[in-house]
This record gives sequence, structure tokens and C-alpha cells, in this order.
Amino acid sequence: MTRTAIDGERLLRDIEELNRLGAEPGPGTNRVAYSPADMAGRRLVADWLRELGFSVSKDEAGNVSAVLQGTADGLAPIALGSHTDTVPNGGPLDGTLGVAAAVACARALSASSTRLRHPLEIIDFAAEEATMGGGLLGSRALTGQLEEGFGAAPAWDGRPVSEHLAAAGLDWRGLAAARREPGSLAAYLELHIEQGASLDRSGIPVAVVPGIVGIRRYQVIFTGQANHAGTTPMDQRDDALVKAVPFVLDVERVGGELGLVATVGTFVVLPGASNVIPGRVELSFEIRSLDDRLLDRAEERLLRTAVQRGAQTDRVSAAAPVKSSTQVVSALEAACELLGYTHRLLPSGAGHDAMPMAAITESAMLFIPSRGGISHAPQEYSTPEQCVVGAEVLLAGLIELDTRLDLKTGGK
Amino acid sequence: MTRTAIDGERLLRDIEELNRLGAEPGPGTNRVAYSPADMAGRRLVADWLRELGFSVSKDEAGNVSAVLQGTADGLAPIALGSHTDTVPNGGPLDGTLGVAAAVACARALSASSTRLRHPLEIIDFAAEEATMGGGLLGSRALTGQLEEGFGAAPAWDGRPVSEHLAAAGLDWRGLAAARREPGSLAAYLELHIEQGASLDRSGIPVAVVPGIVGIRRYQVIFTGQANHAGTTPMDQRDDALVKAVPFVLDVERVGGELGLVATVGTFVVLPGASNVIPGRVELSFEIRSLDDRLLDRAEERLLRTAVQRGAQTDRVSAAAPVKSSTQVVSALEAACELLGYTHRLLPSGAGHDAMPMAAITESAMLFIPSRGGISHAPQEYSTPEQCVVGAEVLLAGLIELDTRLDLKTGGK
Repeated sequence: MTRTAIDGERLLRDIEELNRLGAEPGPGTNRVAYSPADMAGRRLVADWLRELGFSVSKDEAGNVSAVLQGTADGLAPIALGSHTDTVPNGGPLDGTLGVAAAVACARALSASSTRLRHPLEIIDFAAEEATMGGGLLGSRALTGQLEEGFGAAPAWDGRPVSEHLAAAGLDWRGLAAARREPGSLAAYLELHIEQGASLDRSGIPVAVVPGIVGIRRYQVIFTGQANHAGTTPMDQRDDALVKAVPFVLDVERVGGELGLVATVGTFVVLPGASNVIPGRVELSFEIRSLDDRLLDRAEERLLRTAVQRGAQTDRVSAAAPVKSSTQVVSALEAACELLGYTHRLLPSGAGHDAMPMAAITESAMLFIPSRGGISHAPQEYSTPEQCVVGAEVLLAGLIELDTRLDLKTGGK
Repeated sequence: MTRTAIDGERLLRDIEELNRLGAEPGPGTNRVAYSPADMAGRRLVADWLRELGFSVSKDEAGNVSAVLQGTADGLAPIALGSHTDTVPNGGPLDGTLGVAAAVACARALSASSTRLRHPLEIIDFAAEEATMGGGLLGSRALTGQLEEGFGAAPAWDGRPVSEHLAAAGLDWRGLAAARREPGSLAAYLELHIEQGASLDRSGIPVAVVPGIVGIRRYQVIFTGQANHAGTTPMDQRDDALVKAVPFVLDVERVGGELGLVATVGTFVVLPGASNVIPGRVELSFEIRSLDDRLLDRAEERLLRTAVQRGAQTDRVSAAAPVKSSTQVVSALEAACELLGYTHRLLPSGAGHDAMPMAAITESAMLFIPSRGGISHAPQEYSTPEQCVVGAEVLLAGLIELDTRLDLKTGGK
């Protein structure tokens, strides 16, 4: 029996092979959910796992699941996963790395004839990217968190989500049947590129993700009086833009002071003519943090400030933070230490399949650096070495968890 | 021989009658340049003046000119004028008041059998509003200041200006023939609503206009780095919006400090998604003043500040201030005093036909209050009394000038 180790070259070849599916049309990777290229990618992953002895199935949402039995009786599977769908003109690693690394773990176990105590499940989630409505469609279906009316919602191309599902042979009315019960998995682990520049800048090769931030979004409207820019003296103006701009700096300052990210992303000035004093500014801002109390404080401060500056405010959406399983985080930290890789804790600022999965199992993630923090673009890049390090930590974490978890905790 | 006085009721009736032409389509007044309603308005004005003994002609640009001979030989005409075209859904007085008041002066002279020494000319300028390219098309043609390529320029509805001219039986290639030589008029006087709120707020019934401000416009571009709003920490951002907003306050402050009007009217934030840190802001600002040196100082300060803040800047356009004729301003001030009306000097913040006319003759304007400074909208309003006061001062100024000007100054 050989040492259980990731075959790095094979991992990189697998990623390349997957990305040849979706090399067209346009630059970057194009495996938009439920497209023929996306379906072909999932078939390739299924083929790899079947060859390794896994039982492969596809659920009503298009999630591909492959299971290899463990040596102990009655244990729920430990799952590894991510997604192989991409945004249009996406990058080579977002999602793809996590699935390929899960396959690499399976190859490593197979090559060394290692069997885990727990069954090992590998899941290639469907429609993770926000191309089908708000994203995470597959993992939401699998965890019973489908949004009302998702079938009629417009997909990225304006057509309803139901049409894209139908093109892939799926019926939107049947998606709820993909649901799995809490406790049906012992744990869920996901490797992903960071999609931020923290690791890239710090030179740290791996992060364990203590949770996925909550996101709250707000609309703020400043109203003034549109008027002639030539005939209205400065002291007789009610300029909505002049009233609104200090609030942009408020958002920036509160974000820095409270230690969360706060962003004014949309900012529309009306009527928007060079010779008219602006009469209205419509802006949106969002705040993200792993700490719901911090979100409360930032919301309270910023909405109060906006109102004091004369604006109308409205909370548009609020998604609560999702904490990782402390047990899984601990096992992943132990794996980093075992392999001698410096690591840090780094919350995820973006959504991932691990977020819905936390509703039914012990869930956590690993990040590797992404160059310049760029993702969802053809320029998305991590070095081959960084990808292999991620897969090595994923494998070590999996083996650690297989040892730590038992029948009692496996049922959550 | 009765006293030479404005018939206020008749003036108001004339304005009403004109505005019945252009009551459709849509709210407000609709006599967009070269439209059938605009042509009908001009025919009505021509008919009124023909009845008063004027010789009426139309030039190649569609300007309507009516001349009544004076008693002295060899004097150039004193001209009164404005325009009867409107913006779409415009107000009842912008331009219309000036033409109707000029007709009222002619009616007053006729009713009292008064003949001026100079010929009296009344001009209803074509296409003053910026519906045909940048506006002032008729007065630019008449003063030899047509812009290059005006025929192909898009009109307010996207069709080329040449098509609108053709629909009114005019050939854009012939417009230059409308040109008149410097000295062909002894003076030009124009009554207009203020289109600002200075008179309305101060309760002063009339202003003499010492000049029309110069306007300079600039584009300023701030570039940052668009990035994920969730995964990019506050201290690693290059947010173009955060960089740009202090400049809005710079423009506001410099305007106030230097005593000119300065406005950021367009402000576009890109890419403009709630979850993306802005990567680019494109804004335009303009400054207006009667004093070219002030414009120089404001430009120098603001462009320097923008560059210090990291922006790229570009001067898009610059129109120099146009000073009124001191001789005509003096006659108009004397007319106000003669009639016992409080008055003030008030530069025009907007363009008027009097601006091109200053290139060929002694030119100045009168303003009456406009309620709330609103114009180019159906809500545009001055009281009947205010309109009549304006016409009275115009008449008194005309008579004053007829006395003051002689052969020598008539040739400019």
C-alpha cells in the first residue's frame, strides 16, 4: 500500500480536460448552468468517479452525486464538493477546482487502496453561479431552501429559469424532490479559490473559512430640486448630488471603523444633464460581515446618518451570516498543521454551496489564493502549486474528519 | 395724439392667442422650431405687424423680420425681438413674451401716432431653443455665426436639423445667406423672463442685463479598480466613487468662493452593480460667469484639484461671456427710472438671441421675474402685471434710445 497523496499533475490535467468543455463561445470558460457544455462537464466528472468505483446518480435539480462505501456500518457520508458550472466568460477555477480536487482525493484514496470509515460522497452542485436567478440553485434544492417562484425568475439571458431546466431535461416543478434531510451527511467540505486578494497579498497558501458573511442591501434616495445650472445662484440651490456625496464617505468610514466591508455600488444622478442641477440621487449600499451584531450596528449608524442627511432609506435584502462547523474548521486547521502549511482564518465574502449545506450538515471551506483577487473573468488564476496545496489540505482534512467523527456526531 | 403707452390687456390677449398655436400635443406650449405650429405662430406675428404698417419678410433661416420706416433719413433700424419657438412641452412666456412685447410697442406707437426717428424693426428669431443642435440657429445665421456641420447635427428628436428645415421649406445649404453686416442695425433690445429666481425672490420687478455669462464645460474621469464588494477588504480598495465624491464638494466650494455658478450635472458610476466596488466615475461640470478672468481662476483651481485627486480632465467647450452695450444698458436703466420701477443689474445665466446679436450691433436685454425661476416647463409663469411692466420698460427704453442714438453711433 503506497502513501495516500494527491497526484498533482493528474489534478491539473483533470482541470484542463474539464475546461476544454466550455472553451466556446467567447473568451474564458463557458459552462453556464444547464447548457450542453455544463451537462458535458458533469458527465465527465461522473465518468471519472464511476471508474474509481463510485455509484453515480443525478437528482431532480441536476446535482451529480457519487458515493463510495466506507468500512464502518451505519455512518453517514462525508461529502466533498463544489460546482462545475461557470458564469459566461468565466474563469478556469471557480467551482471547477473544488470538484477536481474532490476527484483527486478519490484518486489518492484509490491509488493507495485506502478506504475511509465513512462513505465518501462527491457532489458536483448544479447552477451555483447566479446565472439562474440568485444562484446556489442546486444546493438550495438539495437542502430544501428553494426560493418561491424560482422557475419563473429570469435567468442571465432573460429567459425564465424553467426553460433552461427543461432544456437540460429537468422539470422545475420537481426540484423540491432533490431535498435531503438534516443528518443525512456527516460533514461537507469544499475547496475554492478565495475570489479576494487577502491570501495573494499576504503570501499565506491556505485559509480555513470560519463562515460566510451575511449581506444586507439598502436603497437610499436623496431628493433636491432640479434647476437651471446657469440661472440659480449657489446659495439658492438644493443640489441632490451635493447632499448625497458625503454619505458615500460615511459608508466608507463606518466600514473601516467597524471592521466590515461596506460599499456604495450603484449611484445614479438625475436628471443627469450638464446644465441642470441634480434633483435626485438614487444609490444602493451593502454591508457584509460574519457578525450579525456588527451588521446591526453598521445598519443603525448608516441609516441614521442617511436620514440626518435628508435621505429616504429602505432595506432591500438581508441574508444572515452562516457560521462554519467548529468541528470541521478544527479538523481543517489540524490538516494544515500536519502538512506544515501556514494558514489563517478568513471569512468568505461571497456565497458558496457550503452556505446552504450548513443547514443540513457540519460544513466548512478551504480557500487558496487567487491572483489579484480576480474571479468570474478569464484572468482568474491560481498557480498549479497553489491548486495542489489546496487539494492536499482537503485530503488531509477529509482523513482527519473520518477519524474524528463517529456515529454520534455523524447524525448531527 | 394720445399718450404712448402699452395696452396691457391687448398684450396679454396676444400672448394667449399665440399660445393657442402649440397647445397640442402634450401639456404646455409646443411650437418646436420649424414645426407647423411654429410656422403658424410666425405667420400670426407677421399678420399683426403687417396690419400695423410694417413691411414683413422672412429670411433663409426662417427669421421673420418686420420694418417700419422712421422719420429721419439714413438711420439704421433699432430692433426689438425674441423668438416664438419653444421646447417640447414648454412654457407660455420664454421667447413669446419678448416678441409679443415688441408687437405691443409697435401697437403703442401706432395708437398714439408716434413715429420714431429710426426705423423700427421687429425680429421673431427662428429656432432659438436648443431643439436644433445647440440652439440660437436663427440669430447665428443672421449674424454669420453658424456652426460647422449644423445641418447634419441631430435635432431634439434624433433626425438631422436639415430635415426639419426642409419640412419648413428651407434649405440648410442656404442659411448663410441670412447674414447681415455689422452696423446694419443701430441697436437690439430684448425682453425676456429671467429663468432664474433672483427677481422673484427679491421682489424687484425688472432687471437690466449687463451681459450673458460665458460657459465652460469639462469632463473629469476618476479611475479605480472594480472589484468584488464582499471579498475586498476596505484597506485594499481602489474605489473610484470614494475618490470622486470630494471633487463634487470642491466644485460647490469654488463656485461659492469665487462668486460664480459651478455645477456637477452628470455623474456616472461604473460598472454600477450593488456588489461591485466602482471602478470608474465619469462626471461633467460647468462654470458660468460674466467675467472671463473668474472663469480662468475657477478652471485653474478645479482642474488642478481634480488632477491632484487623481482624475483625468478635459475641457469640452468654452463660450466666452458676451457683454451688453453700455449705451443700451444706460438707456434701459434710464427708462426704469423714468417709469419709477426699482431695478437691478443681473447677468443672464442662459443664452439668448441677444448674444449673437452683440456681434453686429449694440445689444442688451431686460428681465422680468419668473415664478420660482422655472422655465422650459408648463409651470413657467410671470404675473400679467409683471409682463406689462416689462413691455412698458421696453417701450420707454426704445424711445430713449431713439433719442440718444444718432447717425454716427447708428453705424456702430
